[in-house]
Amino acid sequence: MKEKIAVIGGGSWGATLANVLAHNGHEVAVWEFVREVADHLKTARSLKVLPGLKLHPSALVTNDLKEALQGRSVLVCAVPSEYARATLRAVRESGAVAPGAWVVNVTKGIEPDTLKRMSEVIEEELPAVKGRVTVLSGPSIAKEVAQGQPTLVVAAGPAELAKRTQSLFLADSFRVYTSADAVGVEFGGAIKNVYAVACGIADGLGLGDNAKAALMTRGLNEMVRLGTAYGGQGITFFGLSGVGDLIVTCSSPHSRNRTLGEKIGKGKTVKEALAEMTMVAEGVISAKSVHQLAKKLDVEMPIVTEVYQCLHEGQPARQALKDLLRRPAEDEMAQVGRIFK
Amino acid sequence: MKEKIAVIGGGSWGATLANVLAHNGHEVAVWEFVREVADHLKTARSLKVLPGLKLHPSALVTNDLKEALQGRSVLVCAVPSEYARATLRAVRESGAVAPGAWVVNVTKGIEPDTLKRMSEVIEEELPAVKGRVTVLSGPSIAKEVAQGQPTLVVAAGPAELAKRTQSLFLADSFRVYTSADAVGVEFGGAIKNVYAVACGIADGLGLGDNAKAALMTRGLNEMVRLGTAYGGQGITFFGLSGVGDLIVTCSSPHSRNRTLGEKIGKGKTVKEALAEMTMVAEGVISAKSVHQLAKKLDVEMPIVTEVYQCLHEGQPARQALKDLLRRPAEDEMAQVGRIFK
Repeated sequence: MKEKIAVIGGGSWGATLANVLAHNGHEVAVWEFVREVADHLKTARSLKVLPGLKLHPSALVTNDLKEALQGRSVLVCAVPSEYARATLRAVRESGAVAPGAWVVNVTKGIEPDTLKRMSEVIEEELPAVKGRVTVLSGPSIAKEVAQGQPTLVVAAGPAELAKRTQSLFLADSFRVYTSADAVGVEFGGAIKNVYAVACGIADGLGLGDNAKAALMTRGLNEMVRLGTAYGGQGITFFGLSGVGDLIVTCSSPHSRNRTLGEKIGKGKTVKEALAEMTMVAEGVISAKSVHQLAKKLDVEMPIVTEVYQCLHEGQPARQALKDLLRRPAEDEMAQVGRIFK
Repeated sequence: MKEKIAVIGGGSWGATLANVLAHNGHEVAVWEFVREVADHLKTARSLKVLPGLKLHPSALVTNDLKEALQGRSVLVCAVPSEYARATLRAVRESGAVAPGAWVVNVTKGIEPDTLKRMSEVIEEELPAVKGRVTVLSGPSIAKEVAQGQPTLVVAAGPAELAKRTQSLFLADSFRVYTSADAVGVEFGGAIKNVYAVACGIADGLGLGDNAKAALMTRGLNEMVRLGTAYGGQGITFFGLSGVGDLIVTCSSPHSRNRTLGEKIGKGKTVKEALAEMTMVAEGVISAKSVHQLAKKLDVEMPIVTEVYQCLHEGQPARQALKDLLRRPAEDEMAQVGRIFK
């Protein structure tokens, strides 16, 4: 079934997914807040930050929320997490959301201070869509999807809507699995950046592939513990939105969070490292939110704690490494094992 | 407690672990079958294939099994899997195994045709150590361990021996966790090479990081299904010996199995690819064994099947990719979910 879809946010990921949807024959409108970006996307059919994307001719691009929303049965939320609440409020206040519309969330992150998932923010700001929000997540570097490289993701939410989300996006090179665990799927994507910073720090310290694989593995162990305390299902973290996204984010040399970590591992302060970068590294904010969440839910997160201390409390990277290696090595699954019993 | 230990096999991994043990103050003898390798290791205290290793002066190196075994309370089995049974038989026939000795297995692989784990082969050939075998596994590229790079592994087996294995090897940069699931720990290391070949094929076909992360994630899903049917515990595959070793093996550009896959992905035949390589790629043999095992235990393994067909039935790599992408995408954890219920 061909749908009328509004993609809220014309950044790399929003524009890429709009393109996937348009190629699948859906009637797509892309709304972008930054007028210059919207204009460029509308006329040049491309994004300066994403070489390789060629936006489908059928996709409408606009800077006008009402124009984007009117008559659309599906909204794809693709705004950066720090602007999500304000944008969703504007969406509500536009009064243009069609009755019965539902939402696919592709924004990754936890809201600072409230520590809420993006889906919760969506349901709070758009009460009309309550219970009708799905999540699409997985190892999906936008550039590769834009180039048509094979990619596997997972759509999670209420069974019928998860299936509809799957049908919307499914394409030859874009395989979509389904999951009933929206909380777990969403949480994996929100926390992974902290481990990307950790792997970057390891790179900066000159550590090798053994150490990075161990960081990812023990990171996954932490993710399961915090994610299940947060309401997700443990098994979900072993899927595309958990370990899959973790692997791609930690491995990619182009990841902003990994790059930030590398600078810190080499001895730069966070201020110096950030000053050298042109784009925001969400890991700095995530590390704080995830650290707060771990404290709130009383879950031990050694790697998150060290990354937090490096980023926010001036802890030298080498000390963080020493702290981690000095911890007693117990039964590998001592804490996670209990979750699956 | 300082122990007298014989390391059977002076290849990269055996010599590296002998060095870890010697640095921990244990009295170590390394036995190596190839006389030239033994002589070089004895006199130059190094291996030609492993830059960075400097064997501790206290370690004895010998080509004589009796000399290596006499009075040693611990045997570390570090011979290549294809020579394991014959070597262990020679160990038994030497009559030099000390009463009460126990074994740490670090050889990875499944025995062709019998489809047995190395620990089973050890217990069959050395009935005297039955019930006293542990396994040490995890993401551990020998070169990095030899250089003292931080590495995390897991020691599995009967509780008391797993703890003793942990104490033997534990060092500042070599952290050893414990696990009660020797079958699962051993199986992860035995099957991972097939996925390294798969990731290499993906590289050869020009696929990106999304596809490789997806291959590892769906590969992990297969590992859990086959590994639990084989007698391991599902949770183990989410640890260092499962996903950890999988990540390091699939990511390392130097992995022989990944390199072999890359050549095949670029269109070479297996024969051509192997002719270009100086070292054996175990993945060719593993793919066959794991494929046989999956059939025997009636477990669906789409990635293993495609790799097997590429390596042993002349299937073109591009066709394998098409087959995988054409599979229906169901609930992500449809099969694995049941294992954890």
